[in-house]
Amino acid sequence: MAAAAPPPPPSAAPEPSMAPPETIPIGHPVFTRIRLATPSDVPFIHKLIHQMAVFERLTHLFSATESSLSSNLFLSPPFHSFTIFLLELSSSPIPPLLSPSPSFTPIEKTFNFDIPLNDPEKEAFSIYYGNQQVIIGGFVLFFPNYSTFLGKPGFYVEDLFVRECYRRKGFGKMLLSAVAKQAVKMGYGRVEWVVLDWNVNAITFYEQMGAKVLPEWRICRLTGDALQAYQNANV
Amino acid sequence: MAAAAPPPPPSAAPEPSMAPPETIPIGHPVFTRIRLATPSDVPFIHKLIHQMAVFERLTHLFSATESSLSSNLFLSPPFHSFTIFLLELSSSPIPPLLSPSPSFTPIEKTFNFDIPLNDPEKEAFSIYYGNQQVIIGGFVLFFPNYSTFLGKPGFYVEDLFVRECYRRKGFGKMLLSAVAKQAVKMGYGRVEWVVLDWNVNAITFYEQMGAKVLPEWRICRLTGDALQAYQNANV
Repeated sequence: MAAAAPPPPPSAAPEPSMAPPETIPIGHPVFTRIRLATPSDVPFIHKLIHQMAVFERLTHLFSATESSLSSNLFLSPPFHSFTIFLLELSSSPIPPLLSPSPSFTPIEKTFNFDIPLNDPEKEAFSIYYGNQQVIIGGFVLFFPNYSTFLGKPGFYVEDLFVRECYRRKGFGKMLLSAVAKQAVKMGYGRVEWVVLDWNVNAITFYEQMGAKVLPEWRICRLTGDALQAYQNANV
Repeated sequence: MAAAAPPPPPSAAPEPSMAPPETIPIGHPVFTRIRLATPSDVPFIHKLIHQMAVFERLTHLFSATESSLSSNLFLSPPFHSFTIFLLELSSSPIPPLLSPSPSFTPIEKTFNFDIPLNDPEKEAFSIYYGNQQVIIGGFVLFFPNYSTFLGKPGFYVEDLFVRECYRRKGFGKMLLSAVAKQAVKMGYGRVEWVVLDWNVNAITFYEQMGAKVLPEWRICRLTGDALQAYQNANV
């Protein structure tokens, strides 16, 4: 998609009351890029995960720290284990990465919105490439899983999160389709994730994109004291 | 657990009709070992997965071949990606592995059954260590997953399968607890898997071992043509 023309200076804008209904809106371009996260992004990732826990009202389950994330992520080459794509946004074209990963070519897309996106946390999620400010808008964390029936891997999407001020704009779809594209590129058979059964809007969205919601399977989880106890169940 | 005494020669056995009801049964020891699978086990793994598909009446979803398994498994060190434990059984003590993995010390346990286990497919699932015949009785396939809230990995158990003639003896529990033990050893936070919601016996079994069945989450799956199409959803 081509970049939209920059808005004209304010003096050239018509009075709102004078604009006829058929006026083409003056666009606000948003340049976006999906790139692989790196260890230096951990502070952003930690803040995004915490926002997700707040959104899901699950902060009582939240115990990740920047330190725990740093020690457990980025230990394997991208796509072979836990992998994070970050969504970057900017009002200007985003400069190329200085050290791009040979494993992944960033995906770029330019959006054009009628009204500017107001980000009240802009500074807390800013990266500077030279002088240019770029905003981290969301992330997707995924890793390989395996289907013995297919005899091949897939990707499991653990988290997909877009910050509140950037929702309902297509950015979540952009992140998820980047995972699908990578799966196809690697010859993988599936992309899977989970959804809460009462989240009807999400289920409708997923079904419209062609996903199947499996009605019969339930997740079993062994954790905490029960996990500690069960490790010796066979002795 | 100590090995049981071997049964006495047939000539020493009492006539069945003369045995008083309180006679202690003469035991049939079964020596078992859980070890890491290796590439040379792929023919067994393929047969086990196919039996699992038959048991689950899902052969229409089964497309794995020995070749597809070989090309997708054993590419990473054990526990860092897709990992398989095999269950070996023998009527005699199982010889030590010639090339044990430094990543995992096999788990051994001796069972003692009242009646011998009759295995109609013994030859198809036999490995010979020198002259000694050892039977492959089942497997568990698992791989790391990741909890962003915990900020650390866990294990996801994709398949747990014990061949029919060895079921309801504690071998499945032995395989699953071996995964739990490895998770604890690595400092991982969870072991997870899925169960069909109508499989009440399995759910009861899992709850008794301390696992929680999460009622609200549903699996979403994007595969086949829908996966191919969605990869370009953001272009």
